[in-house]
Amino acid sequence: MARRAAAAARLLRRLGPLASEPPVRGIPHTQYEFASRTVSSCRRFHWIPSLQRPPHGPRTNVETYEGKHSANMASEVQKRTFGSAATHIQRNPAYSELNSDDVSYFKSILGDNGVVQDEDRIAVANVDWMGKYRGASQLLLLPKNTTEVSKILSYCNTRRLAVVPQGGNTGLVGGSVPVYDEVIVSLAGMDKIISFDNVNGILTSEAGCVLENLSTFVENEGFIMPLDLGAKGSCQIGGNISTNAGGLRFIRYGSLHGNVLGLEVVLADGTILDMLTTLRKDNTGYDLKHLFIGSEGSLGVVTKISVLTPAKLPATNVAFLSCNDYTSCQKLLLAARRNLGEILSAFEFMDHHCIDLAMRHLEGVQNPLPASQYKFYVLIETTGSDESYDKTKLEAFLLRSMEDGLVSDGVIAQDISQASNFWRIREGISEASVKVGAVYKYDLSIPVEKLYDIVEEMRCRLGDNAEVLGYGHLGDGNLHLNILSSKYDDSTLAQIEPFVYEWTSSQRGSISAEHGLGLMKAEKIHYSKSPEAVQLMASIKKLLDPNSILNPYKVLPQSVL
Amino acid sequence: MARRAAAAARLLRRLGPLASEPPVRGIPHTQYEFASRTVSSCRRFHWIPSLQRPPHGPRTNVETYEGKHSANMASEVQKRTFGSAATHIQRNPAYSELNSDDVSYFKSILGDNGVVQDEDRIAVANVDWMGKYRGASQLLLLPKNTTEVSKILSYCNTRRLAVVPQGGNTGLVGGSVPVYDEVIVSLAGMDKIISFDNVNGILTSEAGCVLENLSTFVENEGFIMPLDLGAKGSCQIGGNISTNAGGLRFIRYGSLHGNVLGLEVVLADGTILDMLTTLRKDNTGYDLKHLFIGSEGSLGVVTKISVLTPAKLPATNVAFLSCNDYTSCQKLLLAARRNLGEILSAFEFMDHHCIDLAMRHLEGVQNPLPASQYKFYVLIETTGSDESYDKTKLEAFLLRSMEDGLVSDGVIAQDISQASNFWRIREGISEASVKVGAVYKYDLSIPVEKLYDIVEEMRCRLGDNAEVLGYGHLGDGNLHLNILSSKYDDSTLAQIEPFVYEWTSSQRGSISAEHGLGLMKAEKIHYSKSPEAVQLMASIKKLLDPNSILNPYKVLPQSVL
Repeated sequence: MARRAAAAARLLRRLGPLASEPPVRGIPHTQYEFASRTVSSCRRFHWIPSLQRPPHGPRTNVETYEGKHSANMASEVQKRTFGSAATHIQRNPAYSELNSDDVSYFKSILGDNGVVQDEDRIAVANVDWMGKYRGASQLLLLPKNTTEVSKILSYCNTRRLAVVPQGGNTGLVGGSVPVYDEVIVSLAGMDKIISFDNVNGILTSEAGCVLENLSTFVENEGFIMPLDLGAKGSCQIGGNISTNAGGLRFIRYGSLHGNVLGLEVVLADGTILDMLTTLRKDNTGYDLKHLFIGSEGSLGVVTKISVLTPAKLPATNVAFLSCNDYTSCQKLLLAARRNLGEILSAFEFMDHHCIDLAMRHLEGVQNPLPASQYKFYVLIETTGSDESYDKTKLEAFLLRSMEDGLVSDGVIAQDISQASNFWRIREGISEASVKVGAVYKYDLSIPVEKLYDIVEEMRCRLGDNAEVLGYGHLGDGNLHLNILSSKYDDSTLAQIEPFVYEWTSSQRGSISAEHGLGLMKAEKIHYSKSPEAVQLMASIKKLLDPNSILNPYKVLPQSVL
Repeated sequence: MARRAAAAARLLRRLGPLASEPPVRGIPHTQYEFASRTVSSCRRFHWIPSLQRPPHGPRTNVETYEGKHSANMASEVQKRTFGSAATHIQRNPAYSELNSDDVSYFKSILGDNGVVQDEDRIAVANVDWMGKYRGASQLLLLPKNTTEVSKILSYCNTRRLAVVPQGGNTGLVGGSVPVYDEVIVSLAGMDKIISFDNVNGILTSEAGCVLENLSTFVENEGFIMPLDLGAKGSCQIGGNISTNAGGLRFIRYGSLHGNVLGLEVVLADGTILDMLTTLRKDNTGYDLKHLFIGSEGSLGVVTKISVLTPAKLPATNVAFLSCNDYTSCQKLLLAARRNLGEILSAFEFMDHHCIDLAMRHLEGVQNPLPASQYKFYVLIETTGSDESYDKTKLEAFLLRSMEDGLVSDGVIAQDISQASNFWRIREGISEASVKVGAVYKYDLSIPVEKLYDIVEEMRCRLGDNAEVLGYGHLGDGNLHLNILSSKYDDSTLAQIEPFVYEWTSSQRGSISAEHGLGLMKAEKIHYSKSPEAVQLMASIKKLLDPNSILNPYKVLPQSVL
């Protein structure tokens, strides 16, 4: 009890030294990277800079240990980079091969500027931002409107030319690049905002709008986008919706299934499906738009979107805390939901391996709680309409949590720089991981009470062969499991997979919480979905895309199609 | 300006007289009806008592002006009660007729108690709670588990026996009662709570659980259901999900598409589709559950559900305000979103015709703002974690709104009774409407800035022939349009329809915001959905239910099936 009181006193002392700094009202997420104020112990940085812009050429990655690959080695590359030991995919011979008549036709509808055959430009579109997946497409199309998308798909469907729709190409599972010679249809040329209803906060835009541009636009109107991602500087809203992106605001504003109001989608045969309502409520028939949210471009190409944007709230507070055990993390989450209620906007957790790694590999980052070693760390963020009230509420909650023994130590950010430092630790784990050597990454949804078990089991399995990190969006039940090793090794992989998928499946978890299946996990779907469900998905795929031209080899196993 | 200051002073005075009453911490919605404290000017009442329990026999209603109908007059009754002038539906001759072998089979799987042929019990299930729609079923089945539902549907599919799934039978569009001799499959016997995750607030239950029972259960655990309806005492969660029910918490917690985490559904051929995840995030393949949310039992029978329940917050405040014009109502909504932000939980509006009607016909209800006649009234509710802070915030917001000229007058409830009185006015409009004589009811989604135009246009069209009321969930863009007349009259109907649907369609609105299409509006879907969308819905219906045994004649037009 005396220790707890001392810890509580420390929290207050930590609040003390910086209290003389002029108060900063509100720490909007999206402004962190623009922060210019610095405090001696903190420094300015960019929010996951590596994700801000995709590379303009192939990048090697610890997971692509074979280095630079030629396009015709695609299947071999895949074998190595899937994260699974033995996945071979053959090109589907039912697809036609591109010829000069096809190119002429596309030029007739898109003009010369809309048809890209330049090798360098195509090379960029053939590879994902991690340099992990690489296709061999020879054609990149840049439609400017829905009619052009419709004409492209109608033609490709008739000619049986396979197509990969591409947004910002920031995905993590190889969903947005060709596998073989698919025609790439980029939405980048469709980037207009169509309308904004500033009473209800309803945004309508083309699908190729970059998320950050939309964020800036609606923030000027007093609203925020319901999702925020590290990749926001490159990812496009159509891709976000097609992959049902999660991200940092999920705990507060929920899934895109709840926030997307309407879509315009072009089906495989060129049919334009107008579901572009801007209504919050519409119970007239089946709500078809949900089929296209998260189906990764395999059922249709999203061309326009309307989305509900929440009102922008001015006050953000961030706390960085330590807990002695995982049970305390869980109890703290419950208490935060109860006591912070409507202002809770993030609840992220990291084990001490993550903190150690971040301190070793992230430049200029400081441990806010350096006094001693704790087992778990939690980042809590609140967003509300009253800075001082919210902070008082957060402080009271933390003091109570210390008295209850849930929190060992903690500190509340006193300005943007400190808040940025806290977030930098959490967000930098991925970046720090790849500096070690090889990293095996998994993105799992697991019931919260079991979520950390897989980390400990994996640690037992691997012993000294690897370092196992557990962190993620605890508030959403979403674990990021990173397994670090000095080099990529098939025997290590065999110790991880299929165990990680089998274990997740045994807990009725999800083998892809937010990244999607893409190419990486299409053949693994049965770990999270029943045979009946997969069969129905395949039937729906056949109904909407009978020639299977849209984003082939992705999402669903080849065996059911 | 002087008038505004005087109004602001009045608001404060209104807060005064009751300030000596002991403060009541929190006014949970669901406890209104149990409130025992009374204040001299208010009285205790039940929340929409007519909806609390469905009638145990046919009830006549002003819209069913032909009185008590016999079952074999179904199509004639429909003609009168659709609200549309000329809708005739013929029994589909592809369906088999029930025989004694069928009954024997059902008894073999359900036992005698699960097979109801008693005329009185079947009569109750043949008619909706309004007494507006009436079928002629001869068989009511009461399965006790998913396997039994599967066996029933498998058999009916093979035998081509049409089926109507039935929950609490509280719908408003004839979706839950037979049209002809469909077998009624009631979920009432499947009412068990399966599990509750009290860290994340995730409830898993059978589909036949009554919403109010689930509410009570999760409230004891410190959570609330994400939806609340007047019909909560009877409606079942499976029916809520199958109809994508909206209700009172929509503005705060959003659509069921965002809150339902998993479903178990039995398809027409008896296949059990297990999508009963309890994960907040799961991006593994197409999210099929959304097909069954809002498809009104026409694609499958929901048998189990899992739903995310928000933490219960202790403090509720309710204000009743007046505005001089509709533009002020809109601006007030915008200001409320901005300034009340995270605690705003309801924003309902009523025109003065509604208030006049409520005062004339609702027993014991008092106008909280009797001093003079205003054109519009708004009810604002906040729900948060701190009673006194929330109230201070609401007061400050209202004073500022008065100074800005958005609000003419207003009062904040000082206790549960006053809050109940405010809600009673809003919720009682429907009840008061039917006391006038005939009522033509429409449930429309319209962009907020145009939402009141249809009310004024309708008033011009109808002149002295009818009284036109506009009210509803302004925060959701959901207008309830009630047109009152002394008696039902085809010429009045012809002045209303199809104009009301055409006008709504011209605004890209929805002809059914929250009630669904059911039998009433199946043939009207084209006013809100494109031909391509309706065609795709029909294709999905044929894929999932090729013999069209599930809830026939509903949701989709007969012409596309």
